[in-house]
Amino acid sequence: MTRIVVDAMGSDDFPIPDVLGAVMAAREYGVEIILVGDESKIGPVLAAQNPGTLPIRVVHAPEMLTMEDKGMALVLKARRPNSKNSMAIGIDLVKNGQAEAFVTAGNTGAASVTAYFRLGTIPGVDRPGLTPVFPTASGSCVVLDVGANPDCKPENLLQFAIMGSIYAEKVRGVTNPKIGLLSNGEEAGKGNELIKHTYPLLKDSGLNFYGNIEGKELIGGKVDVAVTDGFTGNVLLKSSEAVAKLLMDKIKEAIQTGGLRTKLGGLLVKPALKGIKKMMDPAEEGAAPLLGVNGLVFIGHGRSDANAIKNAVRVANNAVKANVLESIRTAIEQSLKK
Amino acid sequence: MTRIVVDAMGSDDFPIPDVLGAVMAAREYGVEIILVGDESKIGPVLAAQNPGTLPIRVVHAPEMLTMEDKGMALVLKARRPNSKNSMAIGIDLVKNGQAEAFVTAGNTGAASVTAYFRLGTIPGVDRPGLTPVFPTASGSCVVLDVGANPDCKPENLLQFAIMGSIYAEKVRGVTNPKIGLLSNGEEAGKGNELIKHTYPLLKDSGLNFYGNIEGKELIGGKVDVAVTDGFTGNVLLKSSEAVAKLLMDKIKEAIQTGGLRTKLGGLLVKPALKGIKKMMDPAEEGAAPLLGVNGLVFIGHGRSDANAIKNAVRVANNAVKANVLESIRTAIEQSLKK
Repeated sequence: MTRIVVDAMGSDDFPIPDVLGAVMAAREYGVEIILVGDESKIGPVLAAQNPGTLPIRVVHAPEMLTMEDKGMALVLKARRPNSKNSMAIGIDLVKNGQAEAFVTAGNTGAASVTAYFRLGTIPGVDRPGLTPVFPTASGSCVVLDVGANPDCKPENLLQFAIMGSIYAEKVRGVTNPKIGLLSNGEEAGKGNELIKHTYPLLKDSGLNFYGNIEGKELIGGKVDVAVTDGFTGNVLLKSSEAVAKLLMDKIKEAIQTGGLRTKLGGLLVKPALKGIKKMMDPAEEGAAPLLGVNGLVFIGHGRSDANAIKNAVRVANNAVKANVLESIRTAIEQSLKK
Repeated sequence: MTRIVVDAMGSDDFPIPDVLGAVMAAREYGVEIILVGDESKIGPVLAAQNPGTLPIRVVHAPEMLTMEDKGMALVLKARRPNSKNSMAIGIDLVKNGQAEAFVTAGNTGAASVTAYFRLGTIPGVDRPGLTPVFPTASGSCVVLDVGANPDCKPENLLQFAIMGSIYAEKVRGVTNPKIGLLSNGEEAGKGNELIKHTYPLLKDSGLNFYGNIEGKELIGGKVDVAVTDGFTGNVLLKSSEAVAKLLMDKIKEAIQTGGLRTKLGGLLVKPALKGIKKMMDPAEEGAAPLLGVNGLVFIGHGRSDANAIKNAVRVANNAVKANVLESIRTAIEQSLKK
């Protein structure tokens, strides 16, 4: 039975969504859950769920990392062997083989840094890549990196491509995933210096390289994996979410401030729009893997609800069962032999 | 009377939207229009509009630049003194003082390169910045650069900030515009190397510097001007447009494939949604200025309709009347003295 650690102190409304989502996941997916966090806070929430004989146990962590944890102080907490926060203790459970994956809805930076220092990277991977799934016109696209590495080298982007390809294939079920290099134009010569130097590496990589793509092709669903540096990826992620939110807000506003006809129409289309909102909702995917660290780590939105946490556990479970970590290890090893 | 050159061969459906939009602008804004392009194509379209005594004249250009014009061949066409394409001839009219601004819905790269080589840059400006207006939660935000310069130095971004600030104030009527530096985090230390080195320049610039912003704050309307390198700006622009389009398409699809109730609701909310579409529509703004070249040049979407061309002329006319070029010249000069 897959054992998955869930950070009970992760989400904005911790520990309720985190514990509820974990219980739901244990019920639905038959995974073993280790809740890590403040026992006194987790206990009552967990008890209220009547977990009965569900395979859920609690590992106490007296401290937690918050949005305030950053910079050098964070690095020190991430590196200290006896750190007592829920992320460090949870990730150590994966490191020591007591669990196969770690899921958190906490501070993305804190989780990434903690995972990076405690697990290290897979041999041959210089930098891990945070890898969310974007909704697209044809389904979805895995994008990395979206924030872990603001400054990248071409080799980093090649590693992202290898890891993203495996993730798309093994976890998202895409056969021979198409890889796009995010640029400011589709032609081969387009891009900044980083892109121009990355292009030939991807072309010779043996991967199913589609070529350069613009934001339009990414969202249009032309590729299964889009590779970018963490700075551009972060701008892409944050602005895409914000545009979708702005549009939905404006539609809501237009309906609410409209006349009677509009309001009535709004009521009638509401169920259909709900489907759209769900499609654009990152909570549906649950969490993004931090690919390249030596262990499976999934990081979700702070505003995750119980459903998002449950979905994060589902995705983590799929990644464990698909043996993603070993596949990445092998693929990177082979790429180094070239 | 302001004289504005309109490239009749610019839009995807040239010359109809281009000529119609120009005629509408001459009627509505009392500007003098010079249509540049193939006389034999412009003539019949113009005549059909009964321009009467409207101040519109045609300057013949036997050639045109298309999406195929790029790379070194484009540079040669842009530099050749006797180039006969509509962009070169139109921009030369501005250069020689026969008109105050040039408007095109043609190939953005071709227009930028032609303007750069024929007009040169304002003294102290290394690189011009393409400057569209983004719809935001609170109104709009001027963003530059979105594509002219994939690789930038901190000094380029400082120049973008100075030029964007003036454009927001003089043409968009924003008092003391707030400038944001697009980054992957709001704190001062966040960003890639470019952003980290740009931050202190903006802080000491005397501009109303808000600090770093993420895509969320940009779209959320926290600033009036967002500064970024052309690579990131292009990804931002293309993906934002694509997300808005995807969402509107999915809403349309959900309504069309929904049941009778949903379809009826769709009919009732249609007028309200139309307002949203208009808000998100780049055609409403008409065209983006290429700030920093030694003359006023506005570049619109290829898919511009007559209304978009008309709006582009309106914005160009506003820029002329606001004396934007001279203001930028002075501001850059002053910044060099510091």
